[in-house]
Amino acid sequence: MSAVPQRRYVITFGCPDRTGIVARIASFLAEAGGWIVEAAYHTDPDSGWFFTRQVVRADSLPFEVDELRARFAGVARSLGSESDWRIEDTGERRRVVLLVSKAGHCLYDLLGRVASGELDIDLRAVIGNHETLGDITRAHGIPFHHVPFTGDKQDAFAEVAKLVDEHDPHAVVLARFMQILPPHLCEAWAGRAINIHHSFLPSFMGARPYHQAHARGVKLIGATCHYVTADLDAGPIIEQGVIRVDHDDAVADMVRKGRDIEKITLARGLRWHLEGRVLVHGNRTVVF
Amino acid sequence: MSAVPQRRYVITFGCPDRTGIVARIASFLAEAGGWIVEAAYHTDPDSGWFFTRQVVRADSLPFEVDELRARFAGVARSLGSESDWRIEDTGERRRVVLLVSKAGHCLYDLLGRVASGELDIDLRAVIGNHETLGDITRAHGIPFHHVPFTGDKQDAFAEVAKLVDEHDPHAVVLARFMQILPPHLCEAWAGRAINIHHSFLPSFMGARPYHQAHARGVKLIGATCHYVTADLDAGPIIEQGVIRVDHDDAVADMVRKGRDIEKITLARGLRWHLEGRVLVHGNRTVVF
Amino acid sequence: MSAVPQRRYVITFGCPDRTGIVARIASFLAEAGGWIVEAAYHTDPDSGWFFTRQVVRADSLPFEVDELRARFAGVARSLGSESDWRIEDTGERRRVVLLVSKAGHCLYDLLGRVASGELDIDLRAVIGNHETLGDITRAHGIPFHHVPFTGDKQDAFAEVAKLVDEHDPHAVVLARFMQILPPHLCEAWAGRAINIHHSFLPSFMGARPYHQAHARGVKLIGATCHYVTADLDAGPIIEQGVIRVDHDDAVADMVRKGRDIEKITLARGLRWHLEGRVLVHGNRTVVF
Amino acid sequence: MSAVPQRRYVITFGCPDRTGIVARIASFLAEAGGWIVEAAYHTDPDSGWFFTRQVVRADSLPFEVDELRARFAGVARSLGSESDWRIEDTGERRRVVLLVSKAGHCLYDLLGRVASGELDIDLRAVIGNHETLGDITRAHGIPFHHVPFTGDKQDAFAEVAKLVDEHDPHAVVLARFMQILPPHLCEAWAGRAINIHHSFLPSFMGARPYHQAHARGVKLIGATCHYVTADLDAGPIIEQGVIRVDHDDAVADMVRKGRDIEKITLARGLRWHLEGRVLVHGNRTVVF
Repeated sequence: MSAVPQRRYVITFGCPDRTGIVARIASFLAEAGGWIVEAAYHTDPDSGWFFTRQVVRADSLPFEVDELRARFAGVARSLGSESDWRIEDTGERRRVVLLVSKAGHCLYDLLGRVASGELDIDLRAVIGNHETLGDITRAHGIPFHHVPFTGDKQDAFAEVAKLVDEHDPHAVVLARFMQILPPHLCEAWAGRAINIHHSFLPSFMGARPYHQAHARGVKLIGATCHYVTADLDAGPIIEQGVIRVDHDDAVADMVRKGRDIEKITLARGLRWHLEGRVLVHGNRTVVF
Repeated sequence: MSAVPQRRYVITFGCPDRTGIVARIASFLAEAGGWIVEAAYHTDPDSGWFFTRQVVRADSLPFEVDELRARFAGVARSLGSESDWRIEDTGERRRVVLLVSKAGHCLYDLLGRVASGELDIDLRAVIGNHETLGDITRAHGIPFHHVPFTGDKQDAFAEVAKLVDEHDPHAVVLARFMQILPPHLCEAWAGRAINIHHSFLPSFMGARPYHQAHARGVKLIGATCHYVTADLDAGPIIEQGVIRVDHDDAVADMVRKGRDIEKITLARGLRWHLEGRVLVHGNRTVVF
Repeated sequence: MSAVPQRRYVITFGCPDRTGIVARIASFLAEAGGWIVEAAYHTDPDSGWFFTRQVVRADSLPFEVDELRARFAGVARSLGSESDWRIEDTGERRRVVLLVSKAGHCLYDLLGRVASGELDIDLRAVIGNHETLGDITRAHGIPFHHVPFTGDKQDAFAEVAKLVDEHDPHAVVLARFMQILPPHLCEAWAGRAINIHHSFLPSFMGARPYHQAHARGVKLIGATCHYVTADLDAGPIIEQGVIRVDHDDAVADMVRKGRDIEKITLARGLRWHLEGRVLVHGNRTVVF
Repeated sequence: MSAVPQRRYVITFGCPDRTGIVARIASFLAEAGGWIVEAAYHTDPDSGWFFTRQVVRADSLPFEVDELRARFAGVARSLGSESDWRIEDTGERRRVVLLVSKAGHCLYDLLGRVASGELDIDLRAVIGNHETLGDITRAHGIPFHHVPFTGDKQDAFAEVAKLVDEHDPHAVVLARFMQILPPHLCEAWAGRAINIHHSFLPSFMGARPYHQAHARGVKLIGATCHYVTADLDAGPIIEQGVIRVDHDDAVADMVRKGRDIEKITLARGLRWHLEGRVLVHGNRTVVF
């Protein structure tokens, strides 16, 4: 996980487990001169499915990413995997669109990471159902679109979708966006829409999780970064974090303490997603 | 929280919040020459209820604990609290009975703490619905009673109750006891029966929480130490802990990793209970 | 710790331990009608010093803060404490000045907390020895002063001191300011200058702690928020945090992961300082 | 990391990094029909050294472990590694000897793990420089040897070495053994002698780390599991853990709280060592 922004190809691949998969993929790469800088494997014992993520130095291969994809397709096919693979080129910066509401902590955090160069993404736009966070977004040089949700929600979502889709983003991040995505957008953005939920799921699904947590008297509160699916707060979990609370913490204190966990958990999950580390398998994730 | 086993009186007290409570209690103690070594306060803003725990050096008072109780009753009454208070004498060692089944990790851990003197309790008996843990218990010099649950459960619980109640214990610990306490025992041991549940409640209540956690694909698993109530896995929470898991962890790995959190969370919750640090308020706890 | 911004007086007090201190203070407050909303006590067994922090609702007292101070002085004196106490009025917003260099993560984080209202402070100015963070600071409406340190450091520090002291700040925060404060400023700002060091002190004092941590092969890295003293990286510790690293983490990864711990640990320590929760005792702190 | 005790061969290997290593090893295994159930890779960017750990199902290979070693030697040689590799057979239970003193928490913990089957090792003997922990060890059916250190230490260590070496153990665990191993034993047991130090190294090396931690006023205390080298408390770190403390914690409280971290950190490090997950590289470890 070096921070050097060397160009790399990230291969993620899944197929039914059997003998010789690693040898097949590694030999294919070795024959082309590919220098593997990261490699991770996992087999799910329940489903017998094999997963791998391989990162290859782009300059070690004598051809471009399209040719790599074309050649790898044959390898994948020979291992029984027609479509469960992907090769991404880190030379193409990751395009991201953020959806926000009024709460700014996740947005501020992500803007800071982008500004400091820590998160090297192409942040195309921020879309808010309130104008609240417009100024700070624009101060960072990022376009901000205000799409009010006070009228017809279907129309509002249509406008959001239009503003998002024109960027063909690698990630659509619901950074404390307080609206529930309609099923057709969950479908359209499957595997790309990432939400941060302010509880340690599956505890306290739905509205006002900190109020629920306070009422139950838990001693730790948490946050969950997950892919958005039509099943509310039930999508595949990418990352979770927790922080201690005690009897002195009113709901307002939980809200405050929880923010730190939310923003860090979201930033971590987003990074992993954009680095191609997260492979979805049913309703669970493999995070390499 | 010094480890010196000096004799102390532990006062826990609750009353409706108002001006002057601290002054009233502190003046009462000061007039008697009481040396306060620990003092903690809390007001629940929702209910307007005030809580305090005060620890006084026994040798600083010119009278015994019964006289302290008699005098304090007047103070409590003047503050509107007839019965929501207790004074415990650390000179009387805490009596504890453990209920176990086959899984030994919590028992081994508690026996080790007792043997090393870390947990200075009067461990009266261990009761198991299997014989599995009998030898190790007896090797520590603790009586072990095997009460089979293969026949009539009502009879078995009657025997358990008899074996427990003869010790009038300050704590009845369900140390991975796999039987559900009947309502009348929840009632009889209210505020004294402590359970360790192998999940981060309220997630994964009921049976096989690690299987549930694995199926949901969570990234942290946990354990919850709570008072037992007739409402299964829903009693007031004393303490919770978590540990990270990832996609490599099968259910068996979660079970193994979870044990460490279970035993530590239980030991911590039990210690706090026995030190009079846990005040129950509705379905929540104040832990001083 | 309610989030309601009710006006309060925060009393912090220390004196030699003896019987009756709590009674004396509590009675004084009760007689004036003072409504205590938070109270914490501690006695250091080594030095026999007693500490307390009491928070009183301003509207419960029939006089202003100056009168409270005048009256409390007598109480303090009667308990043997001429000067080891302070009464702060939360109605007077806390004035803060930040010192920064090029690394922006702590600054971004604090600006975000101020902008969202989470950290309700009067952020008077940001002073940088580089211009790097000027734009973002000004975008938040906060004055930014660039004081180059390329020439005579003594002159530069004189200018920094002038820019800081005109605000008479409650806290001077070295938010990854890469210059070592000269002894006379450590002295002048004693108990107010707060630093965030990017290691788990006392490990890896001095320069390039992440490089040191990497070379030693530690499995956790950390950050330490502490008061600045003339003894470099050795001042009283307010708060510390850690995060896991492994063999995959190069120094650059440690730097990146460490940022999250640095910014959160600093924000937490600063909040506690400004709320009057931190009492310094020798080279240690009591954090109520 | 399935808990199923299937027989496996664990290959750990290091060589100078270059293209084609994975392909070479994976092809070798695939040609023999080897079913890889775990595979992990790492390259140290500073030294350019490549590391891997591969776990193969024993029943997938048509020959025994000696033949596997013989054949693999050729692969290793072809990759420039004469001796930096090892193949272990999980069919041969790991032999372990424990060295203890008076403090029992780590011993109790390990005995409990062995008794419950969680730690499936061949615990050959416990050697104590005091008799204190003899009874509990024998109650678990494990031989206990008392070797007093009151006389000539050289003689005592000679006897310890004799008692240890007759078992040719995979691990010699200093489970809070309070004696410093002489250099010749550090040498003889290099890579097998594992210590638990009761501080977050490199903080507080040497004697009485909790006293040091208390004096410095840290807010977290820790424990470090590391290989023993002649350089006291400076050997390669396997695992570290921490726990929060505050101003209320006297040294005795730190000692008590620290025990839980010590025993868990040691158990984790020992497990990883015995599973062949820990590769030493200079003074650092790769933990797969």
